[in-house]
Amino acid sequence: ELRTRLDHMHPADIAYILEALPLDERLIVWDLVKAERDGDILLEVSDAVRESLIANMDSHELVAAAESLDADELADLAPDLPHEVIEGVFQSLSVEEREQLRAAMSYPEESVGSIMDFDMVTVREDVTLEVVLRYLRLFDELPDHTDQLFVVDRDEHLKGVLPLNRLLVSDPDTEVGTLMLTDFIDLQPGDEAEEAAQAFERYDLVSAPVVDSQHRLIGRVTVNTVVDFIREESEAEQLAQAGLKEEEDIFAPVWDSVKNRWAWLAVNLVTAFVASRVIGAFEGSIEKLVALAALMPIVAGIGGNSGNQTITMIVRAIAMGQVKPDAIRRLLRKEINVALINGIVWGGLLGVAAWWMYGSASLGLVMTSAMTLNLLLAAVAGVSIPLLRERLGADPAVGGSVLITALTDSGGFFIFLGLATLFLM
Amino acid sequence: ELRTRLDHMHPADIAYILEALPLDERLIVWDLVKAERDGDILLEVSDAVRESLIANMDSHELVAAAESLDADELADLAPDLPHEVIEGVFQSLSVEEREQLRAAMSYPEESVGSIMDFDMVTVREDVTLEVVLRYLRLFDELPDHTDQLFVVDRDEHLKGVLPLNRLLVSDPDTEVGTLMLTDFIDLQPGDEAEEAAQAFERYDLVSAPVVDSQHRLIGRVTVNTVVDFIREESEAEQLAQAGLKEEEDIFAPVWDSVKNRWAWLAVNLVTAFVASRVIGAFEGSIEKLVALAALMPIVAGIGGNSGNQTITMIVRAIAMGQVKPDAIRRLLRKEINVALINGIVWGGLLGVAAWWMYGSASLGLVMTSAMTLNLLLAAVAGVSIPLLRERLGADPAVGGSVLITALTDSGGFFIFLGLATLFLM
Ligand SMILES: [Mg+2]
Ligand SMILES: [Mg+2]
Ligand SMILES: [Mg+2]
Ligand SMILES: [Mg+2]
Ligand SMILES: [Mg+2]
Ligand SMILES: [Mg+2]
Ligand SMILES: [Mg+2]
Ligand SMILES: [Mg+2]
Ligand SMILES: [Mg+2]
Ligand SMILES: [Mg+2]
Ligand SMILES: [Mg+2]
Ligand SMILES: [Mg+2]
Ligand SMILES: [Mg+2]
Repeated sequence: ELRTRLDHMHPADIAYILEALPLDERLIVWDLVKAERDGDILLEVSDAVRESLIANMDSHELVAAAESLDADELADLAPDLPHEVIEGVFQSLSVEEREQLRAAMSYPEESVGSIMDFDMVTVREDVTLEVVLRYLRLFDELPDHTDQLFVVDRDEHLKGVLPLNRLLVSDPDTEVGTLMLTDFIDLQPGDEAEEAAQAFERYDLVSAPVVDSQHRLIGRVTVNTVVDFIREESEAEQLAQAGLKEEEDIFAPVWDSVKNRWAWLAVNLVTAFVASRVIGAFEGSIEKLVALAALMPIVAGIGGNSGNQTITMIVRAIAMGQVKPDAIRRLLRKEINVALINGIVWGGLLGVAAWWMYGSASLGLVMTSAMTLNLLLAAVAGVSIPLLRERLGADPAVGGSVLITALTDSGGFFIFLGLATLFLM
Repeated sequence: ELRTRLDHMHPADIAYILEALPLDERLIVWDLVKAERDGDILLEVSDAVRESLIANMDSHELVAAAESLDADELADLAPDLPHEVIEGVFQSLSVEEREQLRAAMSYPEESVGSIMDFDMVTVREDVTLEVVLRYLRLFDELPDHTDQLFVVDRDEHLKGVLPLNRLLVSDPDTEVGTLMLTDFIDLQPGDEAEEAAQAFERYDLVSAPVVDSQHRLIGRVTVNTVVDFIREESEAEQLAQAGLKEEEDIFAPVWDSVKNRWAWLAVNLVTAFVASRVIGAFEGSIEKLVALAALMPIVAGIGGNSGNQTITMIVRAIAMGQVKPDAIRRLLRKEINVALINGIVWGGLLGVAAWWMYGSASLGLVMTSAMTLNLLLAAVAGVSIPLLRERLGADPAVGGSVLITALTDSGGFFIFLGLATLFLM
């Protein structure tokens, strides 16, 4: 009866169940799924779960699953499939589909080409809506997310788009050419998918045509793919911030998890080691005044936190396109003022606390100055790191948090212990 | 000429420009925008920028801007408008619109009711498609994102949906009742918007009907609103992780920025102070062996990082609904194993480094044991904190990172200095 319930479920729901099951139970459920639905479900599951399912299918099953997919879907699955399976499927495709598959596989990840499909309905501009309506009735069904028809000439050049909403409210005797919109958003397959996503968000699109350099229609992007792309991007960012390379199957073997998290821990180890050496350089001062050891993590920690706030805000503003080059000086001035206020207020508070606990006013003063200086360092680094990376063409988000924490840790220890050595020894 | 260029731009593009400008230039551009477009643009800008624009408009302008909006849009804007403006607009609404506005304003934030609109096209089930097509031609235009018509009876009970794609490919003599889908997704206004977003993602929807408890059609949700919701949610999460209360206008006055970041810095100050007191308790040991001061931040830092990796992964898995109650033991076992491997490998490496630098094998051993124990603490806390919060009905994501860092900082110092005091003094 589980089998019949699965038969009535949407592929995305089955994918959801498979993701929530540990490997052994997952494979039992997977065996109960009808073979002709395997392809659609493989498209829906997360990368980690997909690998676990594919590893447990033989070539014959994989070819059958892949043959049920469109060229664009096949291209998404291809990187996870064994070579002989792709060969096998390729033989079964029509000439047009082979061309589409080759095209779809040729675009880099995160490009418009990688998220487009080939399910366009096209019409000519010199026919009437009456003819279009009759033409549409020849279809068994229209492709999902068909909210507009693409108007092309004999050579597939895109002349305009005809929204179904216009088609439906207009007089059937009107010609397509007089009703179509010529001022529409078109994408190129080499554009960044993120740009396409922003266009969908801004202009509330359901579908958008993709054209080549000669403005010939070659595909389209639909909003459901864009939604998946947005969700995946934001998840990848969140995971990257915690130093996870990719989405992890939570039931993955221990060893896979170790590998996924290793790189970041290694970086962290190096930066922690550097910070430790900074402290090591001041061991003489700590020996004389052991209170320094207790107070120094506060200076470093607050700096790191404040720097992360600044960098998060700047990275987000850059991503939204809100930071023009001439804004740098203004932003720096503002962040420096925020840092000064926080330094004087919180640093002052902690300075008083240090004075009270250790009975030394000069220790309190060193504490306040060190906190203020480290907050200033955090502010300057928080603004400069992402802006510099942006200017050098690097992704402003990646690793910003590690860099700034490393800087405010080592910098904080150096400033605090340095000031203490200068003024208290 | 700037004015004419603005007249030809999409409201979302003007919003984008306004967001990228410092306050003084922003207000100059805002004055150049035609008054009848003010409403649409206010809907598109970020909350912080919206406040800055509204603060510089008089009641008369605000009423004019608000009157150009639909009830659902007005409800979105209402919290930012002065009371007398809402009163003024309310007078100008029809009875139906007043009812809609009252309804739209009554739903809590993040509910389906707060993201729905009232632009549904409804048809009866006993008419033919021919009649439907003629009815649609009476419209000047169909509402945006009309991908399906809603089939209702005389009392507005929702009987089914008729996708335009079905309407277009079918014989005009067919009756709506025989063609409509009766197995469709419907939402209730009190549902969480996040659930609606997940339904849109899973089932690739463009619109979905919203019904009341008697299954009467009261509105619809469209994919463009869902896309905005998803983007805002993921941004709010990212900002919350860095301890920013809300999206900050990067050109906001210094004081606003300070307030936005204050709460988190205060929490951080308390946790840093606690960690400092833990160290303070061991000042005697540090005085005798100053190397401890240099090594302790490594133990705390690596633990914090590793704990953040675990908690990020678990929070994400909970959000995706992948963590069933019986998974806890399995997850704990796995994370403990990962922690043991990392503790032995990285902890061992650092132990050797400490031995080599300070010439004390027992110091190295203390280092390795402390790192392993702190990684175990991080693993247990990383799994338990979000799962406990989830079970207590709290959001598993909020503040998890602060909690775990506080725990691994204080805990790391305590474990390392405690072991050192026991075995080295
Ligand atoms: Mg199967
Ligand atoms: Mg398919
Ligand atoms: Mg693709
Ligand atoms: Mg498709
Ligand atoms: Mg037909
Ligand atoms: Mg939008
Ligand atoms: Mg830290
Ligand atoms: Mg204006
Ligand atoms: Mg409007
Ligand atoms: Mg609303
Ligand atoms: Mg609307
Ligand atoms: Mg008409
Ligand atoms: Mg989907």
